[in-house]
Amino acid sequence: MRILVINPNSNQAMTQNIDRMAKSMAGPDTIISTISPEMAPASIESHAEDIVAGYRLIEAATTYPEPYDALVIACYYDPALEALREVLDVPVIGIAEASAHMASLVAPKFSVVTVLRRGVRHVENVIDAAGLSSRCASVRGVDLGVLDIDADLERAATLIAAEALKAISEDGAEAIALGCAGMGPLDKRLQEELGVPVLDGVACAVPLAESCVKYGITTSKINSYDRPPAKKSPGLDPLLEQIYVPATELKVNA
Amino acid sequence: MRILVINPNSNQAMTQNIDRMAKSMAGPDTIISTISPEMAPASIESHAEDIVAGYRLIEAATTYPEPYDALVIACYYDPALEALREVLDVPVIGIAEASAHMASLVAPKFSVVTVLRRGVRHVENVIDAAGLSSRCASVRGVDLGVLDIDADLERAATLIAAEALKAISEDGAEAIALGCAGMGPLDKRLQEELGVPVLDGVACAVPLAESCVKYGITTSKINSYDRPPAKKSPGLDPLLEQIYVPATELKVNA
Amino acid sequence: MRILVINPNSNQAMTQNIDRMAKSMAGPDTIISTISPEMAPASIESHAEDIVAGYRLIEAATTYPEPYDALVIACYYDPALEALREVLDVPVIGIAEASAHMASLVAPKFSVVTVLRRGVRHVENVIDAAGLSSRCASVRGVDLGVLDIDADLERAATLIAAEALKAISEDGAEAIALGCAGMGPLDKRLQEELGVPVLDGVACAVPLAESCVKYGITTSKINSYDRPPAKKSPGLDPLLEQIYVPATELKVNA
Amino acid sequence: MRILVINPNSNQAMTQNIDRMAKSMAGPDTIISTISPEMAPASIESHAEDIVAGYRLIEAATTYPEPYDALVIACYYDPALEALREVLDVPVIGIAEASAHMASLVAPKFSVVTVLRRGVRHVENVIDAAGLSSRCASVRGVDLGVLDIDADLERAATLIAAEALKAISEDGAEAIALGCAGMGPLDKRLQEELGVPVLDGVACAVPLAESCVKYGITTSKINSYDRPPAKKSPGLDPLLEQIYVPATELKVNA
Amino acid sequence: MRILVINPNSNQAMTQNIDRMAKSMAGPDTIISTISPEMAPASIESHAEDIVAGYRLIEAATTYPEPYDALVIACYYDPALEALREVLDVPVIGIAEASAHMASLVAPKFSVVTVLRRGVRHVENVIDAAGLSSRCASVRGVDLGVLDIDADLERAATLIAAEALKAISEDGAEAIALGCAGMGPLDKRLQEELGVPVLDGVACAVPLAESCVKYGITTSKINSYDRPPAKKSPGLDPLLEQIYVPATELKVNA
Amino acid sequence: MRILVINPNSNQAMTQNIDRMAKSMAGPDTIISTISPEMAPASIESHAEDIVAGYRLIEAATTYPEPYDALVIACYYDPALEALREVLDVPVIGIAEASAHMASLVAPKFSVVTVLRRGVRHVENVIDAAGLSSRCASVRGVDLGVLDIDADLERAATLIAAEALKAISEDGAEAIALGCAGMGPLDKRLQEELGVPVLDGVACAVPLAESCVKYGITTSKINSYDRPPAKKSPGLDPLLEQIYVPATELKVNA
Repeated sequence: MRILVINPNSNQAMTQNIDRMAKSMAGPDTIISTISPEMAPASIESHAEDIVAGYRLIEAATTYPEPYDALVIACYYDPALEALREVLDVPVIGIAEASAHMASLVAPKFSVVTVLRRGVRHVENVIDAAGLSSRCASVRGVDLGVLDIDADLERAATLIAAEALKAISEDGAEAIALGCAGMGPLDKRLQEELGVPVLDGVACAVPLAESCVKYGITTSKINSYDRPPAKKSPGLDPLLEQIYVPATELKVNA
Repeated sequence: MRILVINPNSNQAMTQNIDRMAKSMAGPDTIISTISPEMAPASIESHAEDIVAGYRLIEAATTYPEPYDALVIACYYDPALEALREVLDVPVIGIAEASAHMASLVAPKFSVVTVLRRGVRHVENVIDAAGLSSRCASVRGVDLGVLDIDADLERAATLIAAEALKAISEDGAEAIALGCAGMGPLDKRLQEELGVPVLDGVACAVPLAESCVKYGITTSKINSYDRPPAKKSPGLDPLLEQIYVPATELKVNA
Repeated sequence: MRILVINPNSNQAMTQNIDRMAKSMAGPDTIISTISPEMAPASIESHAEDIVAGYRLIEAATTYPEPYDALVIACYYDPALEALREVLDVPVIGIAEASAHMASLVAPKFSVVTVLRRGVRHVENVIDAAGLSSRCASVRGVDLGVLDIDADLERAATLIAAEALKAISEDGAEAIALGCAGMGPLDKRLQEELGVPVLDGVACAVPLAESCVKYGITTSKINSYDRPPAKKSPGLDPLLEQIYVPATELKVNA
Repeated sequence: MRILVINPNSNQAMTQNIDRMAKSMAGPDTIISTISPEMAPASIESHAEDIVAGYRLIEAATTYPEPYDALVIACYYDPALEALREVLDVPVIGIAEASAHMASLVAPKFSVVTVLRRGVRHVENVIDAAGLSSRCASVRGVDLGVLDIDADLERAATLIAAEALKAISEDGAEAIALGCAGMGPLDKRLQEELGVPVLDGVACAVPLAESCVKYGITTSKINSYDRPPAKKSPGLDPLLEQIYVPATELKVNA
Repeated sequence: MRILVINPNSNQAMTQNIDRMAKSMAGPDTIISTISPEMAPASIESHAEDIVAGYRLIEAATTYPEPYDALVIACYYDPALEALREVLDVPVIGIAEASAHMASLVAPKFSVVTVLRRGVRHVENVIDAAGLSSRCASVRGVDLGVLDIDADLERAATLIAAEALKAISEDGAEAIALGCAGMGPLDKRLQEELGVPVLDGVACAVPLAESCVKYGITTSKINSYDRPPAKKSPGLDPLLEQIYVPATELKVNA
Repeated sequence: MRILVINPNSNQAMTQNIDRMAKSMAGPDTIISTISPEMAPASIESHAEDIVAGYRLIEAATTYPEPYDALVIACYYDPALEALREVLDVPVIGIAEASAHMASLVAPKFSVVTVLRRGVRHVENVIDAAGLSSRCASVRGVDLGVLDIDADLERAATLIAAEALKAISEDGAEAIALGCAGMGPLDKRLQEELGVPVLDGVACAVPLAESCVKYGITTSKINSYDRPPAKKSPGLDPLLEQIYVPATELKVNA
């Protein structure tokens, strides 16, 4: 099977790390393609960038030139998750929800350690949308931008470990989800250091996507996530034209 | 003061109705300007259209050629609400949250009657984001598209009244919020017919926006809704350039 | 329009401050009358005083000699709010709910800073009754009685600011609601000092009351808040006689 | 020990039924005194009457001429419950909370069948205040006034049974709490008819009050329910004078 | 009436303390029998031991040689509570739920101080099952095993008091439930020391069991807690044979 | 890798179906072993049988003669899930939680269709323990025993489809989880018939177990799920001896 992984920001190093992580978790018969949309934000750290990224994600996912069997959104705000479930016929998995589901299998409560403090409530809402707030002990932010992680991985590791320890000792977390795709390369090192399961969202999302495909289940189209019917509008946004392409004509669903 | 009202869809009749409603509720010193973004969807009935509309909303709000004191988003999914709170310095009010707040002042429980059934869960999430799920008896959809309302107002009135009566008798609603800006013209007629308060979101949002301005409060910039700092990216999305304009240079905040 | 504002305690300085604040927020065509009931408690800091205050509030509201278009209850426990919604036909707004609704428009989470610690849970319940617990980061009490505020405004300002800063840094509040009508005069000063929106309940309630009147909505009488029908009882409480007066004969609704 | 039971309405037949029920559940060494306050409402079916009843309840409880060891409030809105916990030093039990606690011991979910439909949300709030909403399948109202029950007990039994059966078959209730002190005489008959536990609040409250006394626990005075300190006010409400009597001088606590 | 109290662990000193406490709270006509099952764990501090204890509890309760009118389970995890409600026809009370119900009558919020930290989440789930999470300020563990309490009661008292004080000052508790049957002997001493109600579960459960019997209510058998019908299986577990004995033949229900 | 699947009931046909389903979802390098404990109940339809089954499950899992890398519990009550997480060092997955997690990836809301009505609340609690109540539209029971499914698969299919349709049309479900391992063989047939994703728990649990092993995460041992330390007791239950075996000596963890 073929899984398309989209890193919604424009950082190439991050795209490569995501690709590596995705491939390390994929089964022998799975082909992973990891891309980044054109005109993507450098990083996604606000609701405003989340909407721009979502717009570019839909564009990239619906114009990808080859069919694929599942889509993974590799940003911890799960941007455009519900929109892509509407537009595509294949399973769509966000890395935040993926890490929350998997963390719930190995610990009674997990905490998310994310990047900027300003994103804490945003991540709380993403975990709530995944339905797993009751298993989430806390969301904590280190004072790092997304792009600072790769720039100084040592410093990032130190800050994340410090915040994770607070989550464990003060909030009751017994596992840690890494709240940014850029933190993925630190998973095993932090797991060893902290003594609790440490989960990267990409690593969690890929096998969940594979499992859906293998089991033959995909997004329910019966109501909420049905494809929006085409409508005409003066000066139609070009992305809408793409969204309104009939499912049978959309290459990616072929 | 000057309030900008944006109807995020391209329907001109609806924009005119929204403008009329907004002006009917505005104070004597308030200037209402109602616009619709370029390349807006014909109607917003899915998460995919919600993201496109959000993108175009941010574009329209940040490039509006004159300063304004508050912004009202005239679509019941409150698209781009949090993003606009980040990008602008003036108060931003969504019509869904506005109707939920006002309904809570006149009834212990309200129900929302919205357009398509597929949008019911979307509206539930919007009310939840407003913080008022506990006061919302139910969200119900009639089987009408946004554009069908204006096309046959009589039929819309009949269907909305029927669903509202179910909300009252079966779900315990004691007030009705109209879950689509297009339903606004029916508010008084339905209020008389149903015998309970019936609230249009635009009518609720305008005085709330005025109240914020008059009281001298605006979106807290201390953390979650701070403006995202500018970042460079190869092939930057033009909207991001607009988002990254320093607040002091953004005309609309002048 | 005419709005009656009732300060349910007997403190004249507080009544004057409330009147000033109410008038500062009222529209040009609104007449504000601020009164205090006879036999009101000196201050309302317990459930016992809340009931006495509620009793005297209903008495004052139903025997007020002139008609009015809306009622504002100027005590942060929102005493007798539901009872007055039953008895009156005009909109009734409590200052606690008003500040919670308005704070939710300018911040993702607000905290209430109230007077005595013993009242913290009482205020939590009031915010919960307003339906906005999910937007309330915390309720915190300073160690001040209601009457101590006016007695030493400087000290009150210092203590409130200190507690508000804790709410911001420890609880995640991004706006502050002042949990006592007596704190109103400090709103702008604290807003400047704290750098977040600071909301006084009276300032919030008056435009909400005006908005209801202007939009032509009032308390739903369909069920929960219908007027209680008159019943005879041996030795009837004089207030009940007043409550049982038919709506059409009640002057205030004229 | 001596338990004071107060029926907050003026209906003598109901006071007698309550007295009978209380005595049937009391231990051999318990003396039950059942009274009704002067100037009590004929029945309590609204928030307005609830406040008047609460006022008269506090008056009756604080001026009762003999000491008592516990107080039972025999109205299903648990009027003045928190106020009386502040003012008295002895345990205070409301019949609504009592029935909810006991019902939770014999069924996974219970429903309350109360009198008027308008009171349904009021009772929901009372059960929520007791902390037991998660065990309450539903609150349902029959279309009967409080005083209609005693006037035609047969008809009341038929209507309550019908509504209880709906609670069992539609809402998942496995026990029924009778949501009005006037329904007490029907408990055993309905239990037999319905085949599930049927609980009267007075019958539940008396042994709970006894248990507190026997175990030597009473209302915590450490914070929320501490006695309000005396304050002077021009034209002080006579009830406040009574509330402010020092605990040591209040006869009932002797 | 006869109440069977089962201490599900094998500690004889604890069984004796439980027996003493139960008898001190029982009415003059109540006969208390306190036993411990054969093959019981030394203490119950994990889910694994909880299941073994539950198995042995059911065995002990269904083979007890004499009839009894109610059963009290004297372990703070309320092991096998729902299973025993199915198997027996008499009321079954767990000490955790009992202490939570009684604490809710004397304080707005209570905290549980339990033994090991690893059991904190387990106890939280037990309180949630009782339906009273909303009244529980916190569950806190001291670093003591169940058997360490009796071994050094002084040290236990010191540690429990310290943790209880944190619950009061940091979490808002106004009463303390002792989260282990072994802590019972400390109740009055801690109550005096802490100045808030301190509740032992056995002391709470016995009068609740008596009240059910006296009032003539027992576990609802209409659905969730109906006796499981007998089924044949190759190599049937001997306990299942005991569970499948028809109610009429089960001695304990006689 | 090697995954042990335990069907906690004694039905051989069901064990074979479970084995078939597990193998169909396992990766090429995974060895599935499916067993049923000795002395297992014929079916698990009550809390009493759940405890017996849990006891036998722990026994079977800890005495299995060969090492394994993950354990799947193939009963929809997830019996002994937390206990086994304590006792074993390998990941443990329950089929109820597995189906809830996977269903949340393909639909906004899922319903569970389980066997007997008496088990509805039990399953609700299991889904709540998984943390996913907010994504569960409803749990519905058909009037079939576990063993009736295999006995007449046609009738079972008809009844399950009818109940699933009600869940879809009345409760808002957009996917269906099959609430009994015995229903597994019907998954694809019902999916086709209903037009929504239909999920069998065994099919969901196996790839989740594989994913944990592949990613190198297992149950967090830092607190709640640490192995219980060995304790001595007179007449120790033989299962406790097995539970107390040091992890390093337990074959299954080798």
